[in-house]
Amino acid sequence: MTNDESGFALRDATVAIIGLGLMGGSLALALRAKNACRRIIAITSNAATREQLRARNIADETSADLTRASSADLIVLAAPVRTIIAQLPRVGAIARAGAIVIDLGSTKREIVRAMDTLPAHIQPIGGHPMCGKEKAGFDAADTDLYRNAVFVLAPLERTTPATVTCATSLAASVGARPLVLDPARHDKIAAAISHLPHTLATALMLTVDEIARDDDLTFALAASGFRDTSRLAATDVTMMLDILLTNRENVANLLRACAHQLNHLADSIADGNENALRATLERAATKRRELFK
Amino acid sequence: MTNDESGFALRDATVAIIGLGLMGGSLALALRAKNACRRIIAITSNAATREQLRARNIADETSADLTRASSADLIVLAAPVRTIIAQLPRVGAIARAGAIVIDLGSTKREIVRAMDTLPAHIQPIGGHPMCGKEKAGFDAADTDLYRNAVFVLAPLERTTPATVTCATSLAASVGARPLVLDPARHDKIAAAISHLPHTLATALMLTVDEIARDDDLTFALAASGFRDTSRLAATDVTMMLDILLTNRENVANLLRACAHQLNHLADSIADGNENALRATLERAATKRRELFK
Repeated sequence: MTNDESGFALRDATVAIIGLGLMGGSLALALRAKNACRRIIAITSNAATREQLRARNIADETSADLTRASSADLIVLAAPVRTIIAQLPRVGAIARAGAIVIDLGSTKREIVRAMDTLPAHIQPIGGHPMCGKEKAGFDAADTDLYRNAVFVLAPLERTTPATVTCATSLAASVGARPLVLDPARHDKIAAAISHLPHTLATALMLTVDEIARDDDLTFALAASGFRDTSRLAATDVTMMLDILLTNRENVANLLRACAHQLNHLADSIADGNENALRATLERAATKRRELFK
Repeated sequence: MTNDESGFALRDATVAIIGLGLMGGSLALALRAKNACRRIIAITSNAATREQLRARNIADETSADLTRASSADLIVLAAPVRTIIAQLPRVGAIARAGAIVIDLGSTKREIVRAMDTLPAHIQPIGGHPMCGKEKAGFDAADTDLYRNAVFVLAPLERTTPATVTCATSLAASVGARPLVLDPARHDKIAAAISHLPHTLATALMLTVDEIARDDDLTFALAASGFRDTSRLAATDVTMMLDILLTNRENVANLLRACAHQLNHLADSIADGNENALRATLERAATKRRELFK
């Protein structure tokens, strides 16, 4: 692999993916479908997933052993956020000189801070593809998951332009739209458009479940509105927990702001304050319709 | 039309639908597609909709004039809740003796209370099909909207068993699943599984829009999670306003309960209370997965 100013040749590279759940599995499927790299090494402790990866010829090599990533030109960390942080020192100890290390974690500041402690001969960059599902694991993986998704790239100060180019070509190779973004800025935005919706879905599920304890017909009446608004409550708990605990201040602030909105709406409704309520609903409806035409 | 113990013959009936938006329009489409009744009279002030109904032969008669419902065996009120309540005295004044009046409104107590003031020669029953879309108007109408939806029937004390049978056959004729339910019980459940999700979507949209004012990349990162959780914020504002203002206490109580959940989650996150947070997320995720397998 050449990794110089002339550009990174992904098609000649060996890519090791550590973690073959929804995100890592979908990446492996897309890279293989596009024949985008020379070799794929899939590293997962899940024996059934390794067996599938071999049987379907998605990976050239499978292993439960993280040290098998030592021959890779590009190492992709695709576990939940705190697992990635725990894996980084081990990756740093085995990665070959010049190897690029990128992650797919849902928060960026703490990962990028941990990446900064990697040996100088390794090139780290943070990554976060803005796509997902409420289902976890390789069985939920999808060749088209990354297609048209924004793929955030969060460089460190030490990250070279050539590494940004490499990460850009990885994102583009699976149909995603690369977007370079400061890690702190990413975490603040992700709290609003991703972590807040997740937590709202959880709060909705818990609030309605309280009603369902008193009336066993409650969920029988639930239709597409409830289904869609609560969907994210089914998200993998370990992944979600890692997100919330590595983006605490941003998420907590937004939850409180949203709780304030709800209490304000409750007051307008209880008081029958029609004009205020109409203005508030119009503002939200207009904005939502503008966004998703 | 015979409307006795032997059952209601919808196929011989003239059905007047007042309001040809998403709900009334979809009902007209489904009744016509199934050839379920003898005649359809479509009453709407929207000239373009009337033109479409005639051009596509969906209605046998169209009019802007509510009094044209006077020949109907079955009158379906399909406007927003407070419009239905305003229309009921006019419907009572023109409906023929023995006519059945049903509505499709999203709350039931206030409508059923207004129905109780109809003349004794009219048979009223409340109705609420548990289906919908965030889009309004006849252009959003869909022949299959009612298919497999629960169709709540809310009888009054005066409602005869034959009228319940008639409403049941209307619901079944468009593929819905009739469910007889007390109006107050309906409104409490609907607040939880429908009005709360709507209002949460509104609060989400407003909270994220605040962040977007400070960072113009905010919505660029929004993906399917935000899209689905915010979908209901685009719901027709007049319809939503009528729902909230005719189910005030139930909705306000649930909004406050949900705000309490959010503040509690914010505390757990801010404090890094991992065990409590995991237990809460697990509870919501388990319940959501059970519900939508």
